[in-house]
Amino acid sequence: MKFTALASALFVASATAFAPPAFVSKNAGVSSTQQMAFKSEIFTTQEVQLGETKETIVKGGRDLFPLLPKAFEGIKKIGVIGWGSQAPAQGQNLKDSLAAAGTDIVVKVGLREGSSSFAEARECGFSEEDDTLGEMFDVIKESDLVMLLISDAAQANLHKEIFAAMKPGATLGLSHGFLLGHLDSIGEKFPADMDVIAVCPKGMGPSVRRLYEQGKEVNGAGINSSFAVHQDVSGKATDLALGWGIGVGSPFLFETSLRSEYCSDIYGERGILLGAVHGIVESLYRRYQRQGMTAEDAFVQSCESITGNIVKIISTQGIKAVYERLEGEDKKTFQTAYSASYKPAKEILQEIYDEVSSGNEIRTVIMHGARTSEYPVGKIDGTDTWTVGEKVRANRDEDNIPLNPFTAGVYVATMMAQIDVLLEEGHPYSEVVNESVIEAVDSLCPYMHYRGVAFMVDNCSFTAKTGSRKWAPRFDYILDQLAYTAVDNGVPVNEDLIKDFETHRVHQAVEECCKLRPPVDISLFAETSTKEIVIE
Amino acid sequence: MKFTALASALFVASATAFAPPAFVSKNAGVSSTQQMAFKSEIFTTQEVQLGETKETIVKGGRDLFPLLPKAFEGIKKIGVIGWGSQAPAQGQNLKDSLAAAGTDIVVKVGLREGSSSFAEARECGFSEEDDTLGEMFDVIKESDLVMLLISDAAQANLHKEIFAAMKPGATLGLSHGFLLGHLDSIGEKFPADMDVIAVCPKGMGPSVRRLYEQGKEVNGAGINSSFAVHQDVSGKATDLALGWGIGVGSPFLFETSLRSEYCSDIYGERGILLGAVHGIVESLYRRYQRQGMTAEDAFVQSCESITGNIVKIISTQGIKAVYERLEGEDKKTFQTAYSASYKPAKEILQEIYDEVSSGNEIRTVIMHGARTSEYPVGKIDGTDTWTVGEKVRANRDEDNIPLNPFTAGVYVATMMAQIDVLLEEGHPYSEVVNESVIEAVDSLCPYMHYRGVAFMVDNCSFTAKTGSRKWAPRFDYILDQLAYTAVDNGVPVNEDLIKDFETHRVHQAVEECCKLRPPVDISLFAETSTKEIVIE
Repeated sequence: MKFTALASALFVASATAFAPPAFVSKNAGVSSTQQMAFKSEIFTTQEVQLGETKETIVKGGRDLFPLLPKAFEGIKKIGVIGWGSQAPAQGQNLKDSLAAAGTDIVVKVGLREGSSSFAEARECGFSEEDDTLGEMFDVIKESDLVMLLISDAAQANLHKEIFAAMKPGATLGLSHGFLLGHLDSIGEKFPADMDVIAVCPKGMGPSVRRLYEQGKEVNGAGINSSFAVHQDVSGKATDLALGWGIGVGSPFLFETSLRSEYCSDIYGERGILLGAVHGIVESLYRRYQRQGMTAEDAFVQSCESITGNIVKIISTQGIKAVYERLEGEDKKTFQTAYSASYKPAKEILQEIYDEVSSGNEIRTVIMHGARTSEYPVGKIDGTDTWTVGEKVRANRDEDNIPLNPFTAGVYVATMMAQIDVLLEEGHPYSEVVNESVIEAVDSLCPYMHYRGVAFMVDNCSFTAKTGSRKWAPRFDYILDQLAYTAVDNGVPVNEDLIKDFETHRVHQAVEECCKLRPPVDISLFAETSTKEIVIE
Repeated sequence: MKFTALASALFVASATAFAPPAFVSKNAGVSSTQQMAFKSEIFTTQEVQLGETKETIVKGGRDLFPLLPKAFEGIKKIGVIGWGSQAPAQGQNLKDSLAAAGTDIVVKVGLREGSSSFAEARECGFSEEDDTLGEMFDVIKESDLVMLLISDAAQANLHKEIFAAMKPGATLGLSHGFLLGHLDSIGEKFPADMDVIAVCPKGMGPSVRRLYEQGKEVNGAGINSSFAVHQDVSGKATDLALGWGIGVGSPFLFETSLRSEYCSDIYGERGILLGAVHGIVESLYRRYQRQGMTAEDAFVQSCESITGNIVKIISTQGIKAVYERLEGEDKKTFQTAYSASYKPAKEILQEIYDEVSSGNEIRTVIMHGARTSEYPVGKIDGTDTWTVGEKVRANRDEDNIPLNPFTAGVYVATMMAQIDVLLEEGHPYSEVVNESVIEAVDSLCPYMHYRGVAFMVDNCSFTAKTGSRKWAPRFDYILDQLAYTAVDNGVPVNEDLIKDFETHRVHQAVEECCKLRPPVDISLFAETSTKEIVIE
């Protein structure tokens, strides 16, 4: 999930990372992905057992910076294009790392003529005077590596001009697969004669910067990244991608394909990361009130229980710990809610996956973007649910947020359904765990707990926002129509589903991923927000 | 809207018809549509003023049956393929009309080998013995006109085999543009060497049969149809289409294009015909309860007010009559609700139109169909809203259903937004009024009033059902998030919007269409339902 929006993020996400896959795709969505056990000439790889697969990873760290000159061989100038969420973080990190490694590679920021971001880039040490700041197409023309970090919509609109402007032999670098998705959806391709790579930090840009700075003292702190080598004309693309990932401070790097990345990323944010949690809360908030709770209690038992309790248990002890903590009637309630919710949630999740992998969803985002001048995206935070939520947060007793067993059953069932769809579609565990668990419990939900679900929806990237507004109501309706109706009609617990949950291989994978965490407390919230930007 | 599902419909819709257009398309969705003022060698055309345009129509009636032999010249056998909603009605009507005209043209029904519909077709007078019933591909091979009335999904799956089976010179006949939409979405076309025409009755199949039977005594009773000539290799396609439409009993025929038809049809059922009314009811039902009403009262003031009062006023006196009936505070309430709802509703409606005209929506339906073995489409009728609705219907006082001014404002605003999107996209008034007003107030809403919105959703065609389940929650959420929030925040009435509504040209067009109604009371409900089928 690419949160280009929360420009000076208020918090720093936990970082974890894992490893890539003996990954054979079963689905069109990830069909270009090959059996991947990548090799590096420069960096040391290692294998990690995740679920039933072994995945290959590279561990990062400042101790590897001396290898960067070799990884960036032939690169004299890096153009960091854009100034959203990732660009300030990655631009500064790379600049610092390459300097620490003793190279004279220039990192130059490229922005639209007249962009208000020029001032901010100057504040971060980029300037026209020392030739590290300029107009975007000028920068693109002179760069050996073009890190294209502008918004999805801008990538879709400008890619032809950008490809044409790049000099022969230059590498195109992305931090998200959206552009491939867009090209897929309109039947086009990247120019065949250029290397195309991606390094995709699994956290918001500001956390990429913040943790990198912490990493100066604690080796290995940072945000993990997946990387993808989409086109390797030079034969050097893998090592350049690994160098980039290590240079921005990733503790671990795991391999994916650009297509697998965009499918899982766009899918994930429509699912449990944002869309699903929004829909789940709305449906439970209504249900609990129908059962007699006050609005405030219903909000506490639904939203607060998820963002302030359930995800904390998952973050520290894994998914199954939520279930194991419950006893007696509560355990039964969890099982009932889980049984009833898993399949309906999975129905919507499979629909999302199909829409994303078919290109439909990306076309929807592009068409939605074209309508925004006539229909600006409105805020969702004024409804009853979220105004009550604001009151609840103001009076919150952080230590006494309940673990509601029904809420837990619905939320965990949806998370497990999201995991199962991704695994069935052939995604590697590293990607599955990141997009379905870690990013939810360590990054998004804590933020929602701090500022509210609606605030998150209203301030995330256009692609994420469009998706959340589209899919949240679908989760809401189907849970109400199929899951809660089944519960109220006394449909018995599906023991097979519960057993599948108890014995699911993802639990080991999550545990393994947790072990890979750097030994630094990175779940801090900054005191203030200096800026919140909605980028379209 | 193609309701293939309610096979023995419980009611008979009002019929009205109008006329086609000086129709120049502005949009990709209807881009193949040409300036249309069709000519007939056989039937008399006439012009009708609708809004700012003159549209050409042909009036039907039994008195024109003597012209059928000429219209069907060269046709010896008509294959009616399928036995959903339209096939039994159109098959029987055509057979009766062609016999009444003294022709020896054979109408033969073609069904899948082993289909349970063979028995029903025999009950309606088709049989293997007299060579009027057979296996579908056998019938396709021997027919001069193939009326392809199988489900959308079956058309998408089987079209290649069907095209290949048709004999040289045979005409392909459709009653819906879905197949063109599917071909568009996969980049294919109809074989260039065949005539392709459509006759699209603007009502459910059973009403097409029922009114035809009434028409035997009241000349002109029937369901109007649009018709489209998509390919005219023979030069005779227009008159064959007109003959078909008159033969099935259409009081009036107006021209459209196949693309315009599927865009407006699929759009309409996702909008005010089904999806929007569902979402409006859910959002108002919740809102009124939050304001202190009981669940039952909230249902009466939302759903019952629409299906049992507002649409009756529109049906008999036009859209503006709803507004004109209100006075004082009630009128102000209507204006407030209308002002706040128009733009949010239009935002979703424009999104629907874009999704349909881009081919995305049709791909969604096809992909959804492919998932139904794993995820059978569940029922929506078990939720609180619809179980309360059932109780309300059981205790209904038909003569005292309120005209809630807030509900009216939201509903009418959505209807007007639907009309404006279609007009802006270049659809002719005849089509706009049919898909946005007549079918809603004379056909669908009365049925919902009788059996419930949820029953309608659960029993309509797969394409309609998929769309309603997808879009209803979007209307619900956006009204809650943008419209009702604006009302509660005291945003003043937008006088320009109200003026646009008061002076809108569609009011004249609706009035004109109402004048074209046959002089027979066709809003009758049959006593019982003999069968309800969900066709996928």
